[in-house]
Parts: sequence; structure tokens; C-alpha cells
Amino acid sequence: MSFSADIITLFPDLFPGPLGASVLGRGLSDDLWSLRATNLRDFATDKHRTVDDSPSGGGAGMVLKPDILAAAIDTIAPQGDPRPRILMSPRGKPLTQKRARELALGPGAVIVCGRFEGIDQRVIDGRQLEEISIGDYVLAGGEVAAMVLLEAVVRLIPGVLGGVDSHADESFENGLLEYPQYTRPQSFEGVDIPAVLTSGDHGKIAKWRGEQSLAITAARRPDLMAAYSSPKRPKA
Amino acid sequence: MSFSADIITLFPDLFPGPLGASVLGRGLSDDLWSLRATNLRDFATDKHRTVDDSPSGGGAGMVLKPDILAAAIDTIAPQGDPRPRILMSPRGKPLTQKRARELALGPGAVIVCGRFEGIDQRVIDGRQLEEISIGDYVLAGGEVAAMVLLEAVVRLIPGVLGGVDSHADESFENGLLEYPQYTRPQSFEGVDIPAVLTSGDHGKIAKWRGEQSLAITAARRPDLMAAYSSPKRPKA
Repeated sequence: MSFSADIITLFPDLFPGPLGASVLGRGLSDDLWSLRATNLRDFATDKHRTVDDSPSGGGAGMVLKPDILAAAIDTIAPQGDPRPRILMSPRGKPLTQKRARELALGPGAVIVCGRFEGIDQRVIDGRQLEEISIGDYVLAGGEVAAMVLLEAVVRLIPGVLGGVDSHADESFENGLLEYPQYTRPQSFEGVDIPAVLTSGDHGKIAKWRGEQSLAITAARRPDLMAAYSSPKRPKA
Repeated sequence: MSFSADIITLFPDLFPGPLGASVLGRGLSDDLWSLRATNLRDFATDKHRTVDDSPSGGGAGMVLKPDILAAAIDTIAPQGDPRPRILMSPRGKPLTQKRARELALGPGAVIVCGRFEGIDQRVIDGRQLEEISIGDYVLAGGEVAAMVLLEAVVRLIPGVLGGVDSHADESFENGLLEYPQYTRPQSFEGVDIPAVLTSGDHGKIAKWRGEQSLAITAARRPDLMAAYSSPKRPKA
């Protein structure tokens, strides 16, 4: 059984969008994963297809109604569906490479995309939505965030990246940022490829890359460095 | 002069994609911002339109060639173009709401989307690319990351969100996560909207929301809380 993704959104036409391109798109055609986007508005119960209402207590924007969203979730992921139910939300737990790997090994995900000012808290609690944030900034809605989550997850599904066997050197896979990369031409605007990389000495190359990873991480992300140096090894 | 975004990518057809929907799409039609995606392959110099080559020193994947990418950047953003040149990269500085606000007040952005294993370091240095990361996870390419960056930025351009005047209560705008939201119906699956929100007492409502924001941030993101509590007020 392959990884099955369901999206609940007000903009189903945005999917697969970027998820249909390149290796992820090939994985979709090859049934390594599947994607279905459902319009939340299909679950509205009035003739205006209303899905939102003013926030209780006042304030800007509109809030997605709990009853309509609950009906959508219950239809798409009825009791017993083993997939995690995820809400893309800036209030959520930050997405990590570790969580992406866990999800890639699982049966899929049901992803709710917010719009407007937010979602009624009672449906988040009542349907035990796992709130995931892709970063500390605010978007116009959850759709692009859902694409980020799925892209991070789907590329880790066995077979999707094809011949590219190893993720081991990538940023975050070992808790550090990746070393710098170079390719031909040998000289670019007067700057040569570092001599060690063309030395053919694989031990020296590995040592240089390790040192570069450490130095770049220390300079740019002392927060990651702290996790890496501590006796308890990195989580990400 | 409105905000002008240029994307350098191997998948120009993915744009505007989600950036053409909803309020961002209306802003695009209303010329509040502009978007152009250019195919990096148009700058290749051989008949196979090669843009990448093997990494020096070995390793998986392919690296974008510095000469081809430099030619693309120099054509799209010639000397004197005031826009920041950004590379979407997991090795970059994490995107914050503060950086999104700065970019929204500027002339636009030239955004390079990576693919394959990475980009030759010499073009990052030589063209002074600002590396920005949207989070601590790995994507298949920079395209969806560029959409995230632009969505976060463009919604802050004056006029794009229309009547929705205030961003003040959103997550990160005051350094805290947002309080929970509720809307009708009054009772959902036996759970009522918290009484304070329907009390009509605006002072009490504001106090309750502030307390909820603090409590949620403390529980979920002690890292944000530390910045908030310190004498130097939050940066994000």
C-alpha cells in the first residue's frame, strides 16, 4: 500500500501543482504515492456554501466553522483511518526532517489547509488535529505549506528519488548544514575549485567536507550546533 | 513602482501556481506586484542545454554550474538592479516574519531556485546571493520554497489584503503564537464557545486572548517565549 495524501482545502485546483513536477510527479504517475484534494465547500449546508463566520469576541478576518470542517474530515478520514490528521498552522510544532521521515514511513496523511483568520479550536481538539508549522512566518493559507510538507515527505518515500540512494550528506540528515559544492569549470571568474576536491584523495575530501559542514553550521546556526555538540545527539 | 519578483528556475511553468490564487492573485491582476519566471536552461550554451555537472570530489546528485547561473542572474538583474538576490537553500538564514516585512517594503526580489544536489559555491559568493531557508527540512527543489517566501512577503504589501487592516494579532507579529479562535455554532458536539468571548466585555476578551497567547506559546514554543521574556523584546 502506497503513501496516500488527502488535502482538505478551499482551493483544490492548486493540487498537485508543484507536487506534480519532476521526481515527485513521476512518483505520482508510478503510484508510489497518491494525492486527492477535496473542496471544503462541498460540505457546506446552505445555498451560499458558507464555510466561515465571524470570530467570537470580535477581530479581523473570518474563522472556519467547526461543523463544516468536521463533516469534511469525517467523510475523508472516517473512524479507523490510520493516517495522521494534520492542520497546517503557524501555531503548530515546527516541521523537522525527523517528522518528515516518520511520515514517509507511514500510511499517508490527511492535511487540512486553513484560510482566513483561523479554524475553530473545537474541531482542532475534537478531531485531534496535529498542528504542524513549516516556519515562523505567516502565509495567506495552508495550501503552499501543505505542498512543503508533502514535498519534504514524499521525496523520502523509497523509490521516489530513484537512483539517488543516499540522503546522508544532506543538510539536517546528520544534524549539520551541508558543505559547499563545486563543479566544472575548474576556474570561474578567476576562482578555482578548492584543490582538495580535485586531489582524488577520498579521505582528505571527506575530512574537508566534514570540517566545512561544522564551520558553516557554527557560523550560521549556533542553535543546531548546540544540539550537535551535546552528549544527546541531534534530533533533526 | 510595485514589488517586482523574478524567479530563476528549471520549472518556470509552476509559476504563478498557488501565487495566482485568492488575494495574492488579485494583487497580481491589480499590479500591486509582478512576477516573472525564467527558465535557467535558456542560458545553457550547448545543444543539450546542460545546466549541471557532477560534484567535484564525488558524491550523489548533480550541481548547478556557476557560469550558466551567473549568466542568468546577470541578465535578469544587471548591475544596479536594487533588488536583493536570494537563493532558497536549507543552508540559509531561517526566514522570519521580520525579514518578510523588510522585503515587502523593498523593490522586489530576484529568487534563484536550486535543484539537484546544490549550486556551485563560487556563484553564491560571486553574485552575493542571500541564502534563505524556510525551515529545517529538505525539499526536492527551491520552487515551493520560493512560493512560501513570496506568499509571506506579498500578503504584507499594502493593499494586497484589502480591507483586512490589521496583522497585529497574528502569530509572530507580536512574538507570540495566536490565541484560539471560535465561531458559530455556539455549541459544537457539546462544547460551548468560552463564555468570555460572548460576554461583550472587550477588556475581558483582550485579557483572555493575551493570556491564551502566552500560555500556548509557553507550552509549545519555549524558544519564542525566551525571546519574548527577555529585556530585549522579540525580534520575530
